[in-house]
Amino acid sequence: MQNCHMATIHTIAFDGDDTLWHNESLYALTQEKFAQLLSPYHNAAWVDQKLYETEVRNLRLYGYGLKAFTLSMIETAIELTEGRIQGHEIQQIIEATKAMRREKVALLDGVAATVAHLAEDYRLMLITKGDLLDQEAKIAGSGLADYFTDVEIVSEKTAVTYQSLFTKYQIHPATFLMVGNSLKSDVLPVVELGGIGVHVPYHITWEHEAVSGEEEETAVFHTLPHISQLPNLIARITTSQP
Amino acid sequence: MQNCHMATIHTIAFDGDDTLWHNESLYALTQEKFAQLLSPYHNAAWVDQKLYETEVRNLRLYGYGLKAFTLSMIETAIELTEGRIQGHEIQQIIEATKAMRREKVALLDGVAATVAHLAEDYRLMLITKGDLLDQEAKIAGSGLADYFTDVEIVSEKTAVTYQSLFTKYQIHPATFLMVGNSLKSDVLPVVELGGIGVHVPYHITWEHEAVSGEEEETAVFHTLPHISQLPNLIARITTSQP
Repeated sequence: MQNCHMATIHTIAFDGDDTLWHNESLYALTQEKFAQLLSPYHNAAWVDQKLYETEVRNLRLYGYGLKAFTLSMIETAIELTEGRIQGHEIQQIIEATKAMRREKVALLDGVAATVAHLAEDYRLMLITKGDLLDQEAKIAGSGLADYFTDVEIVSEKTAVTYQSLFTKYQIHPATFLMVGNSLKSDVLPVVELGGIGVHVPYHITWEHEAVSGEEEETAVFHTLPHISQLPNLIARITTSQP
Repeated sequence: MQNCHMATIHTIAFDGDDTLWHNESLYALTQEKFAQLLSPYHNAAWVDQKLYETEVRNLRLYGYGLKAFTLSMIETAIELTEGRIQGHEIQQIIEATKAMRREKVALLDGVAATVAHLAEDYRLMLITKGDLLDQEAKIAGSGLADYFTDVEIVSEKTAVTYQSLFTKYQIHPATFLMVGNSLKSDVLPVVELGGIGVHVPYHITWEHEAVSGEEEETAVFHTLPHISQLPNLIARITTSQP
């Protein structure tokens, strides 16, 4: 009979953006262009700060993703220029984000081999946050879709979200391992529910995904510098624990 | 033993926008304001036509929903004014769609009673297309969420979409009935797969959801003038067919 305290892993779930493929770096590049566009009015640091404020203020209404980012840039541009921004400049903002959507999906180093390897022994899920269409396009473009038994695109990743997925898929949290670059969205809520969280940091973290040192210190999770170390970690977890 | 040709219905799925709650009428009101805003430049019919062209051109990139609508209005405004549109006017477009999101969800007449009644005997699903956050907010605001065993927010409703839902939920098409206001998205693809389609038209149909007379004539589906007639139709289907 199976003991719930034993580390038997049935499902390995992956975050998408900045865990499987590059994302934040594309946003950062567009944000640089945006600051450049507004440079006659304000310095880049101020533009960045105001854009961040607009994004956070709009989160509840717009959620995550490229369309939300575009609308927040437009709003910020109007605000920071007191309405003096020109139509053709706003068109540049729209074009810059459309170009982001056309970018080829760039997998992070080691992802393809790791996912293929783990798919041999585990049921893999993809749990990604953001705009439905953006995420579907990235999943299709990643070449990884066939490895995932289930794909869930959600609007937020809180403990409530994970709990409802556990219910939907009849997953016992102790048999669930989630890998992602965001402590706040991928790791801490899973650990809170009794699952196994694995943090693989990306070189840039969007300010809104950052957590305080305190939250970080009270939770028990694993951190890997590179996703290709995941199979080793899993082998260790599933054999060494009582 | 159950015969697949017998009309045994296990799952009743509903569309959301303009089937359970008013939607297109809100868009139409905002579109009137938009034409008003651009009235110094062009007449309303021309504005409507150009907006529609922009929306369809952007569908693949932006999908459905309020953010897509907002961005398409902004693009159209820039194009139709040759960039002369002012920042504060674009801000009005943004505010108009934000106000749409804050509108209380208005259920169509008869919906609450019909859904509650059918939930007693059937597994109900909600299959809705559009922006993740828009749809989640509407579902929460509808007061109907608890009646639905499963909610699926999808980016398109084609035969492929329904087929993947049938697989995911192990649904036999012949036991599946879908109700919606869009022939193109709710009725025809379901009928194509062997399910039962019920069309309940809304008083406005967005041009993009319209189908040709030919498509309509070759498919066999039910049409009801009012959703409250659904329980009667279901009683008829499940008893009168061999």
